[in-house]
Formats: sequence, structure tokens, C-alpha cells
Amino acid sequence: MHTYRGSRPTLEAVAAHAGVSRATVSRVVNGGRGVRAEVREKVRHSVEELGYVPNSAARTLVTRRTGAVAVVIAEPESRVFADPFFAQQLRGISRELAGHDTQLLLMMLERQKDYARIGRYLSAGHVDGALMFSLHGDDPLPAMALHSGLPAVFGGRPGWPGAEDDEDLLYVDTDNRNGARQAVAHLQERGRRKIAVINGPLDQTSAVDRLLGYCDALGCALQDTDPSLVAQGDFTAEGGERAMARLLDSSPDLDAVFAGNDLMASGALRTLRARGLRVPADVAVVGYDDLEPAAWADPPLTTVRQDVEDMGTMMAELLLRRIGLTDETAKTAPLAPVVTPATLVVRESS
Amino acid sequence: MHTYRGSRPTLEAVAAHAGVSRATVSRVVNGGRGVRAEVREKVRHSVEELGYVPNSAARTLVTRRTGAVAVVIAEPESRVFADPFFAQQLRGISRELAGHDTQLLLMMLERQKDYARIGRYLSAGHVDGALMFSLHGDDPLPAMALHSGLPAVFGGRPGWPGAEDDEDLLYVDTDNRNGARQAVAHLQERGRRKIAVINGPLDQTSAVDRLLGYCDALGCALQDTDPSLVAQGDFTAEGGERAMARLLDSSPDLDAVFAGNDLMASGALRTLRARGLRVPADVAVVGYDDLEPAAWADPPLTTVRQDVEDMGTMMAELLLRRIGLTDETAKTAPLAPVVTPATLVVRESS
Repeated sequence: MHTYRGSRPTLEAVAAHAGVSRATVSRVVNGGRGVRAEVREKVRHSVEELGYVPNSAARTLVTRRTGAVAVVIAEPESRVFADPFFAQQLRGISRELAGHDTQLLLMMLERQKDYARIGRYLSAGHVDGALMFSLHGDDPLPAMALHSGLPAVFGGRPGWPGAEDDEDLLYVDTDNRNGARQAVAHLQERGRRKIAVINGPLDQTSAVDRLLGYCDALGCALQDTDPSLVAQGDFTAEGGERAMARLLDSSPDLDAVFAGNDLMASGALRTLRARGLRVPADVAVVGYDDLEPAAWADPPLTTVRQDVEDMGTMMAELLLRRIGLTDETAKTAPLAPVVTPATLVVRESS
Repeated sequence: MHTYRGSRPTLEAVAAHAGVSRATVSRVVNGGRGVRAEVREKVRHSVEELGYVPNSAARTLVTRRTGAVAVVIAEPESRVFADPFFAQQLRGISRELAGHDTQLLLMMLERQKDYARIGRYLSAGHVDGALMFSLHGDDPLPAMALHSGLPAVFGGRPGWPGAEDDEDLLYVDTDNRNGARQAVAHLQERGRRKIAVINGPLDQTSAVDRLLGYCDALGCALQDTDPSLVAQGDFTAEGGERAMARLLDSSPDLDAVFAGNDLMASGALRTLRARGLRVPADVAVVGYDDLEPAAWADPPLTTVRQDVEDMGTMMAELLLRRIGLTDETAKTAPLAPVVTPATLVVRESS
């Protein structure tokens, strides 16, 4: 382990230059929470002036960094491994973390009591920060993590009460509502008149936003949607299969379906095939995500693309900046949530 | 957190009864390493006599347990998520750990420098033990973990020099050599005379043992195998695809192939189909693992079954016992490696 004495300016030099304590410099360099804006500016000025570059190995010694970041996915192993969304986002996260010599620790959870266990581990100082995914509305974990003072970034906009007003909250999401609106508008342009929707779990903001986008395109309020055209799924292929069957029972003359993700859309394709319906001649199908199952589907799925791997990279970047592990102290872009655009990808299913 | 005073006997009571120190009782209860056999027996006798049940929450306080176990897979995310072997083994591990209120931390690695980072994390006291998978011959990680004193259990028999003589080494494996022998013997019984083999990476003992089983069935020594019938794969479907192509180029009249796992076998099926060869009429195919791709393959694969989820459970059990986290102090079965039997499953590809 090196400490880089000599030509490189030290934390002490920055403290002396700014006329503040070493601890204050350290706090600012590590994300700046709990330091007055005025003092923060003074320190940043000195950092820039002296050309101070925080060294993560040395910093580990000073701040007792662990060199690891937890990725918490509030889903069981079987679901995490079955959904390419997670594999691809993890790839982006892990590359970005590795580039900053930080280890990814993946934690998945199955039952209520797993929350308490994970909460204990996160609070006990074993990780420098956490990336949290697939959180459902009533999830106690973010509160645990935030109370413990652990830097955190969320995958998808958090939906708990008060989340909107929390200016410190960081997340990366895609523009779900606009993406869904594009998908349904596309079906309308193809002349479809009776368009059904298969939702993801509505305790997740992504599922709610995609449903709202469906309503936007149809030009009706959520409460005015035709209940015989709305079916509940759970983001799995099996859930999509069952939801499609219920829709065909309640609305045998539907001519299109928008599914909240590609897995549910591929389940819907299976049900349509089993009932002898042609896609898209009888029923057009659009998914969401543009992950591998979309291109492999038979017929290949029209879907809404979000760049999942990139979103993983962005989450890791935000977290590393909040922890203060990126050597970009001079970077002036504020730490803020990121919402990436969604793009319609037209294939043969519509 | 509870300490269970009153009717339940304490660690102190056991120490007094056995006439040893509290620390000695704690060591014995936590796995018994570094305590003379005679003293260990005395303590175990007292534990049994008093009906002492270690309480893991209380024990965490005493021994500074972290409540977490690392699962280290020496493969990148893309491979771990593409191979159902890992998902299924993780399911077994995670269930068993959750049953003992212990959190699974999954770490995957891609590049050489990841080893040092993971080694540091494992040595820094952030986990109670480690389960390690898919270790290649020259892997520095087991040595790092063992030197740090971290209890460890390996998935698959370790192959580094000296591993055979290390009586403390714990691992769970399947009888790879016998499984492969059965697979090839089955092909011989079906009248196949020119049987090729696609190997996994030969720096893993499972791949070497399966190759040796192939030789056993053919009744020849490793060095006497026909090189035009042996192709190297990497346990991926793409690797199997390419290996099968090379085999058909070097031995166009081969009538069977044994692949070291189901993924490579499914890749081989793709190549055979692309070359217009019928399975099994022209070429019989046998895989290894009996995971989902085997039953889904077209035609469904004959393969060698190992109970992967159970093996995960066994690994976690062994580790929890070594750490001393199972309430089975009275259990007399010695801590030893487990080798599970392998069973041929005949389907339509042979």
C-alpha cells in the first residue's frame, strides 16, 4: 500500500490551504454530506488550486473503507437468475466498480426475515455503499440503509412516501411512462383498436409508470381503463402466460397487448400460440426492456429499449461519486438522479 | 438480542462443568480447531450433559461473527448467469444459510487483479467463511483464504499441489470419473465404436476426472487416446459448438460424442444439426449435469445426473459446521469431504 508523499499534495495541505480541519476536507472529498455549502466550496477551491487527487488506497486507511459495495436485489435467486435484466445490469455495475478497485457483493432475498439480516450486515460497516434494486413499495431496507448513513443509489425511482421530496435520494431509471406511451401509440398507428395491458407488480414504480403510459396513449385516466383489458402479471414469463389467458377469456376480441417487460411478453406469445392465434395478424404484442428474450422470441418482439448495462454503469458511477471514490473532485456536475430515454424497437410481433 | 438466561445452560456453566476456560468452550463449540482432542472430548461431554444449545445471536456478540458467508465464483458474471449450474447450487446454499440466519454474499471475478481485491476483503474480517467454486489450477484465492484462517469449503475437489494430503480440506463433489465412465459405457452398449469427447477446461479437476472416466470406459490410458477424437471446450455452449465442428473435421466418421457438461452438449447438437447430421441416428450425444438445458434440448439429452442443489446445501452445511454455527455439537460425524454418486439418465440423444 502506498501513501504517495513528495510531489503530490496531501489532505493536510488542502486543510491548511482552506483553513479547515483535516476531517472537514475528508468529509468534502468523500461526498460532502454534513458540511455547510460555504465550507464545501472553500475546500473544493483549495482542492482545485493544489491539484489534490484523493488516492483510494491511502483513503482506505484514513476512512476505514472496506473496498466493497453491496448490490441488494429484493428478489429470490431463482428470479434474479431467470431475468436477463439483472445479469446485464450487474455486468455494467461490476465493470465500473472493478475500474475503481471496488468489489461487488451480490445479496438476494427471499423472505421477510432476510431484510433484517441484510439490514444488520449493511449497518455493520462491512461495505462502503449499496446499490438497491427491485424494491417494492413497503420495503424496509432503504430506510435501514439510509438511517445507518450508508451511501446508497437505487435502481428505479423509489416509491415510498416522501421519496419525491428527498433531494439527497439518488437513482437511475428509464423514462418508463414515455416508453410505454410510445409502445401503445405504435399499436394504435398499426390500426389496433382493442389494446390490452399486462402489468408488472404495481408496488414498483416502473410497473405503475408503464401502466400510466398506456393510459396516456389511450387518452383516458387510470380509473377509466376497461378492466377487462388490464391483467396483472409479476414480471415473469409464467405470469405473462397466465395473464394473457385471463385477457383472452375476458376480451376474446382484443387485437393487441402491451406487456410491462419482455419476459411477460414472451409468456403472452406462448399463450397466444397455444390458443391458435397468429402474431401479429390476430394479436400484436409489444414488450419492454429489449433484452435477449425479445430478439429470440418467435416472432421477434417489438419492444421498448432501455440500455440496461449502461444504467448499471451509471448507478455505480453515482455511488462511487457519493462515496468519494472517484478522482473527480473538480467535477462540477451535481449529484442527481438520472433518467435515461426509452426508444421503441419495432420487430415482427406488431 | 436475547441472551437466554434462566432455564437454558450458559457457556459459563459448561466451562465450570468441564473445568476449562470459557474461551476453550467457545473454541470447541465453534469447530474445535486448536484444542487438544482430550479437552475437546471433555467439553463435548459437558455440553451434552447440560444440554447446552449455542445461540447464534449471543454467539455473534462473543465471537464477533459477521453473519455472512462469501460465495466466490472464479468466473465472470456473464458465465455465472448463463450456466444454470450456479443458479441451482446457489439456491441450495442460500436456503441452508438462511435457515441459520446467515447472509450469502456472492462475488464473481473476471480478471487477475480481482483476486487480490477479493482476497483482501475475505481476510479483513467481513465474513465468517467462504464457499469457493470453479477454481482453476493456479488460483491464488484458496491459499489467501486459508492463510487468513477463514473457514472454507470448496465446490469440486481442489486440484492444487498438496491438496490431496491436506486433511483439513473440505469440499463437495460428484463422482465425475465414474459418471463419465457410465456415459461412455452406455454409448458402447448402444453399439457406438468411434466415440469422441469434448472436455471442459483441464485446469479444473472435474474436467480432468471426466476425461479419465472416458479413458476408463475405452480401456486405454490417457496418453493413448486418439487425438482426433479429443476436443477442448470451456463448459460453454459456444465452446461445445466449436469443438464439435473441429471433431467432425478431424473424424468425419465419428458416431458418438461425450461432452463434459450439458451446455457443451447442447452446443454440439447445434453443430450437428447445422451439418445435417441426425441425433442419435448418425451421432449419439451424451452430456453431464442434468440441468434444465438437458431436458429442453432437441432431442432431449442423455446425461449424467448430479444433484446440484443438494450439493449446494451440503457445502453450506459443512461450512456452518466448521464455523460452529450449527447447533449440532453432539453430532459425531467427522467433518470430511463429500462425494455424491453420479447417475446416468437416458433420454433421446443416444
